[in-house]
Amino acid sequence: MPNQVPSLRIALIGHGFMGAAHSQGWRVAPRFFDLPANPQMSLLVGRNAAGVEAAAETWGWAETATDWREAIQRDDIDVVDIVTPGNSHAEIAIAALEAGKHVLCEKPLANTLEEAAAMAAAAERASGKAQAMIGFTYRRVPAAAFARELVLSGAIGQVRQVRAAYLQDWLRDADAPLTWRLQKEHAGTGALGDLGAHAVDLSQFITGQKVTGVSGMLNTFVDQRPLAAGGSERGEVSVDDAALFTARFDGGAVGSFEATRMATGRKNSLRIEVSGSTGAISFDLENYNSLGFYDATAPGDRQGFANIMVTEPEHPYLSAWWPTGHALGYEHGFVHQAKDFVEAVAAGRQPLPSFADGHHVQRVLDGVVRSDQNNNAWVATD
Amino acid sequence: MPNQVPSLRIALIGHGFMGAAHSQGWRVAPRFFDLPANPQMSLLVGRNAAGVEAAAETWGWAETATDWREAIQRDDIDVVDIVTPGNSHAEIAIAALEAGKHVLCEKPLANTLEEAAAMAAAAERASGKAQAMIGFTYRRVPAAAFARELVLSGAIGQVRQVRAAYLQDWLRDADAPLTWRLQKEHAGTGALGDLGAHAVDLSQFITGQKVTGVSGMLNTFVDQRPLAAGGSERGEVSVDDAALFTARFDGGAVGSFEATRMATGRKNSLRIEVSGSTGAISFDLENYNSLGFYDATAPGDRQGFANIMVTEPEHPYLSAWWPTGHALGYEHGFVHQAKDFVEAVAAGRQPLPSFADGHHVQRVLDGVVRSDQNNNAWVATD
Amino acid sequence: MPNQVPSLRIALIGHGFMGAAHSQGWRVAPRFFDLPANPQMSLLVGRNAAGVEAAAETWGWAETATDWREAIQRDDIDVVDIVTPGNSHAEIAIAALEAGKHVLCEKPLANTLEEAAAMAAAAERASGKAQAMIGFTYRRVPAAAFARELVLSGAIGQVRQVRAAYLQDWLRDADAPLTWRLQKEHAGTGALGDLGAHAVDLSQFITGQKVTGVSGMLNTFVDQRPLAAGGSERGEVSVDDAALFTARFDGGAVGSFEATRMATGRKNSLRIEVSGSTGAISFDLENYNSLGFYDATAPGDRQGFANIMVTEPEHPYLSAWWPTGHALGYEHGFVHQAKDFVEAVAAGRQPLPSFADGHHVQRVLDGVVRSDQNNNAWVATD
Amino acid sequence: MPNQVPSLRIALIGHGFMGAAHSQGWRVAPRFFDLPANPQMSLLVGRNAAGVEAAAETWGWAETATDWREAIQRDDIDVVDIVTPGNSHAEIAIAALEAGKHVLCEKPLANTLEEAAAMAAAAERASGKAQAMIGFTYRRVPAAAFARELVLSGAIGQVRQVRAAYLQDWLRDADAPLTWRLQKEHAGTGALGDLGAHAVDLSQFITGQKVTGVSGMLNTFVDQRPLAAGGSERGEVSVDDAALFTARFDGGAVGSFEATRMATGRKNSLRIEVSGSTGAISFDLENYNSLGFYDATAPGDRQGFANIMVTEPEHPYLSAWWPTGHALGYEHGFVHQAKDFVEAVAAGRQPLPSFADGHHVQRVLDGVVRSDQNNNAWVATD
Repeated sequence: MPNQVPSLRIALIGHGFMGAAHSQGWRVAPRFFDLPANPQMSLLVGRNAAGVEAAAETWGWAETATDWREAIQRDDIDVVDIVTPGNSHAEIAIAALEAGKHVLCEKPLANTLEEAAAMAAAAERASGKAQAMIGFTYRRVPAAAFARELVLSGAIGQVRQVRAAYLQDWLRDADAPLTWRLQKEHAGTGALGDLGAHAVDLSQFITGQKVTGVSGMLNTFVDQRPLAAGGSERGEVSVDDAALFTARFDGGAVGSFEATRMATGRKNSLRIEVSGSTGAISFDLENYNSLGFYDATAPGDRQGFANIMVTEPEHPYLSAWWPTGHALGYEHGFVHQAKDFVEAVAAGRQPLPSFADGHHVQRVLDGVVRSDQNNNAWVATD
Repeated sequence: MPNQVPSLRIALIGHGFMGAAHSQGWRVAPRFFDLPANPQMSLLVGRNAAGVEAAAETWGWAETATDWREAIQRDDIDVVDIVTPGNSHAEIAIAALEAGKHVLCEKPLANTLEEAAAMAAAAERASGKAQAMIGFTYRRVPAAAFARELVLSGAIGQVRQVRAAYLQDWLRDADAPLTWRLQKEHAGTGALGDLGAHAVDLSQFITGQKVTGVSGMLNTFVDQRPLAAGGSERGEVSVDDAALFTARFDGGAVGSFEATRMATGRKNSLRIEVSGSTGAISFDLENYNSLGFYDATAPGDRQGFANIMVTEPEHPYLSAWWPTGHALGYEHGFVHQAKDFVEAVAAGRQPLPSFADGHHVQRVLDGVVRSDQNNNAWVATD
Repeated sequence: MPNQVPSLRIALIGHGFMGAAHSQGWRVAPRFFDLPANPQMSLLVGRNAAGVEAAAETWGWAETATDWREAIQRDDIDVVDIVTPGNSHAEIAIAALEAGKHVLCEKPLANTLEEAAAMAAAAERASGKAQAMIGFTYRRVPAAAFARELVLSGAIGQVRQVRAAYLQDWLRDADAPLTWRLQKEHAGTGALGDLGAHAVDLSQFITGQKVTGVSGMLNTFVDQRPLAAGGSERGEVSVDDAALFTARFDGGAVGSFEATRMATGRKNSLRIEVSGSTGAISFDLENYNSLGFYDATAPGDRQGFANIMVTEPEHPYLSAWWPTGHALGYEHGFVHQAKDFVEAVAAGRQPLPSFADGHHVQRVLDGVVRSDQNNNAWVATD
Repeated sequence: MPNQVPSLRIALIGHGFMGAAHSQGWRVAPRFFDLPANPQMSLLVGRNAAGVEAAAETWGWAETATDWREAIQRDDIDVVDIVTPGNSHAEIAIAALEAGKHVLCEKPLANTLEEAAAMAAAAERASGKAQAMIGFTYRRVPAAAFARELVLSGAIGQVRQVRAAYLQDWLRDADAPLTWRLQKEHAGTGALGDLGAHAVDLSQFITGQKVTGVSGMLNTFVDQRPLAAGGSERGEVSVDDAALFTARFDGGAVGSFEATRMATGRKNSLRIEVSGSTGAISFDLENYNSLGFYDATAPGDRQGFANIMVTEPEHPYLSAWWPTGHALGYEHGFVHQAKDFVEAVAAGRQPLPSFADGHHVQRVLDGVVRSDQNNNAWVATD
């Protein structure tokens, strides 16, 4: 970690499991990448004083606070990194941007379209002074970033079809308790916002095309769950267990999407297959270090989906890491995110994905909700 | 082939590649299965005299004719097996049933919903005298039949989600010529009827649930194609290159469906994954001899999709074939179909899938077309 | 089956499960391939009159006999196809060749090296008048034949390493009964001769290199088994449960080999991976219709094992069968074997693999036995 | 990182890529695991002053030195962590142990059997005062550790067969330059010591059985390589490109082993399949987060290799990390190694694998070399 580069003092707001992931990103990035600024783990913010102090000690944050406004007010904070639940994102992010802080905000941008729009507007106003980025971390999975490279380089020709699904199964059991993630007032939507947001963003990232409209349906398989684990009292699940939708993209492609936390046996399977006129790519987050690539321009008898180990120095982010063939994992996305964010901020460049990108994903998700409420009828999202 | 059983004299109408497959089914079934009746390859019918004679010699049919009515009129024909294009199915099948012949008719039942309805009605009228079956052969793939066994036995609990896709890529190349399969007047629809029909039937077969409604869209990526290979003159493609739809089933499940002949790199991938409350199955026709099965009741640290080689004597149809682990292939579905048909006919039992089943699949496909024409709005199909 | 070509009248000696496979080969080959001679299923020979008559009826053989000498003596038999246990091969095959019959003999060529040598000599003497072929049917699996094409075309460069294993598990259970296959006097060896023979032949076929020496070991895990299923009396297992050996090839490659019928969970996994200087191929019989191919001359970031569906018309044998992507299975190897045999015989050409090839494989297996008896020391096999 | 626990002051000797991995292990372990002592990254040692200072800054070591003896002499160092080339291990490790420092030493323990023996003896003498561990990090891959759990719990019954291979391909190209790793005087052996050592250790770890004897061969495919990349002058390769051997284990199992850096297309494929009397496990380091498990006691029609995602909280090490289904990678093995080492040292317990374990692996490798020199004849290694 070179001394001669300037420091970038971070305040992290929130300390759930996402806080651990972001902390690891800030800690590790400067050890493997040659960064133009030096991230300092300065301030950890959480409402519970004891909890935040314990987390700060475990994760290595220098100071703590119990009110996020402190991070905004202090002059010695350059970046506000937000990992709180979605319904608090707008207030914090807008205040931070207005105070001239750079902002990294976890997805979803917000729980409502209105808040998301306000955040994108705030980012637009701050532009040039403070940068804002939304944390669709899966863009930083090397195999996903390489998929984009292949597609944008023309390796699969004209993009025609996207089949995207984000499948988990941790709500499979009908006796899993009713948490805030299953209540509309706290979470907005269920699998749609939690997982569908990733599927939409990553599909757009890989194809370079934007979703212009959707038709979809939401379904709740288990509509009552125990209020507490093992308890007999039950409350209503007010969000979707599964979201299924079809989409059109601005480049002419069509896509099918699915998001669910009840796909028994699928633990973290974010799958995206893109069919093009001369090739195809196939990605699955459960196979973190590989990418399927089909080249329809190869000799006819030698064509097949190649299982590319995305662990070569030529692949995105890989030259900083281990010898060929050595696996990376989930948290590396956060390391790469920290790197990309620092580089953009240091260069005075808009980091991607922007709040505008996040706002657009929110419009797509909102389109699905409205389509579901209107007999699956088509909803434009551009 | 025991002499003491009665003969079942077959007339095959049509001699394209499906004729080869059906011929192989009739030829091979009695060599491996102990059948209650002996199929005789009696009469092959085709409009071109020279063509049908050559095919009869190659495939081993005793006689030929150039008019299908001959098969209906002859007393020495017990079964009419129809493998002509879909627009001729209704006329032949109804005439055969009215003449008291048993009928095996390739899918799709017909190109129009009206014809399909008429065929189902004719089968209903003939019931007890003559049996009618539609050839959704993939029900006879051992892995698919075993998937149904697992699901119906409760091995995956309550069925919640179906993700079904039938992906091929032989129309990927925009210069592939315009054949009858790409013209609405001959084929009705494109990938929807050709491939989507299989996906719908097989999903229903495996889950034991019926589709009650759909919302969908059709898309044509290449709307002009050469009239002949290598030619410069082009004509209009009037059917879909891709069909995407969502569905609800009568048992409470939801499903996503896709059918396309432009999924680059996928050669014959009919994939069906079914998520249940306590397990899941995963089928892909490209892995003909295996089935994925996830048992969520196993110890938590030992759960995973098991890759079951469906080649054990306990598996459907397998006891008649080779030692454990020895692969079957595409044509075995036709052998099993011949066996099942002969057994049902000999027992005076309705063979499955019935014309009514075929008619219902047709209603689902028609629902997709109407939804596509109406902004993806929901269409009931029950 | 064109009438204008000459007939080739077959006598099949033996009617176990291999008889069913060979029968299917003779029956089906002329229905899909345009053969220069017409195989006639003329005579089925078995020692038990009732058994052989039932089999002939089931499989469609015109006549039966209870003494193989009848097949040799009859003028109206052109081909003797031998599927009896290995200890009878030499006598039958040599007599047939001396009588001017063409011979197809199942592997292993014989149980002893002496008999194998005598058979190869007899084939050499008959050469020009009668053709002799050994039935290493897996050479006719399209993916294996295509692997050879790739390797011999230079697609993987210089062949360096072979890793070959033939894994089954039907003897896993220590209570599986003691059959003739587990007794040295009947079977010669255990997994070595049964499965190792295939691994050696297929490795040599794919690489085009011959094994020049071996070092190996045999092991018996279960040395006593019930004389009958469920019985308490036990007899000694006198053959190997597993054979492991290393080898050198005449082109400079080295190889590791394993053969076992106790590889729990592997049903019929004949795996061969060949590493070359510029590429690699990976074959597994359990994935009958696909082949792995790695091209190290592709751009560095796009290399990966391609899963080639060996179901394209360009692939070996495939143009005779179904549309792209439609699976073949175990018995197709026997159909292809029948085709290749008929074509070679009709052309007066040596069909491959020859008895000399079979004799060489036997020398390799014998080398493993001798190495095992001598502390694993190296044994030359060329 | 709790303040109340004692510190454990580390000196790292060496700063190649293994230094980066060990540094990451020490840095990250206390952030995710609740350790009984607090590892301090105190001193980094390297012969080149500028190089070691740059590395210390990048990796976060407090001080540097250019002579490893400084680490031994300083009172404020508790642990000596050795990642230098193998020919320096003995001198450093023995001196450190004699000075009462705990030692973690990268594999191979040493380049010669004599040095390895001396190290094991030194560890034995120091026992009780200072702990010594060898860094076979792959034991800390969760899927490998879980494989051991399964096997030792009896989940696969009696262990019968091991098939182990460590395949890489970075020496595939005959024009890759001649480095110290290809020269006997520096590296001892080639693929055998570099990769074979891991295959032997991990096989023994998973099965709980020790190798008692081997028979093997070494081979060099490219015996001359450029002295420098792109240069025309060539030098002799004096180590093996491939090592193939068979082995027997003290529990009655047999095994086949292969190690090579020329298995084209295999990047980091350490594969171990273990067949037992009632089940099997299948591990491949290229699929870092999953393990194959076959349970032969399941119902006959439901058996298959289950692809277990080893990412559940019940799995080894996983409860400290991310939600279910989220991938770990290569460096996590070093984090787990740091954790296990710290825990053992703090408890005054022998950390595993011990120097005696490392010495035994060395004896096995030496056995392969001697067998190769003596016509593959059997060599006892216990």
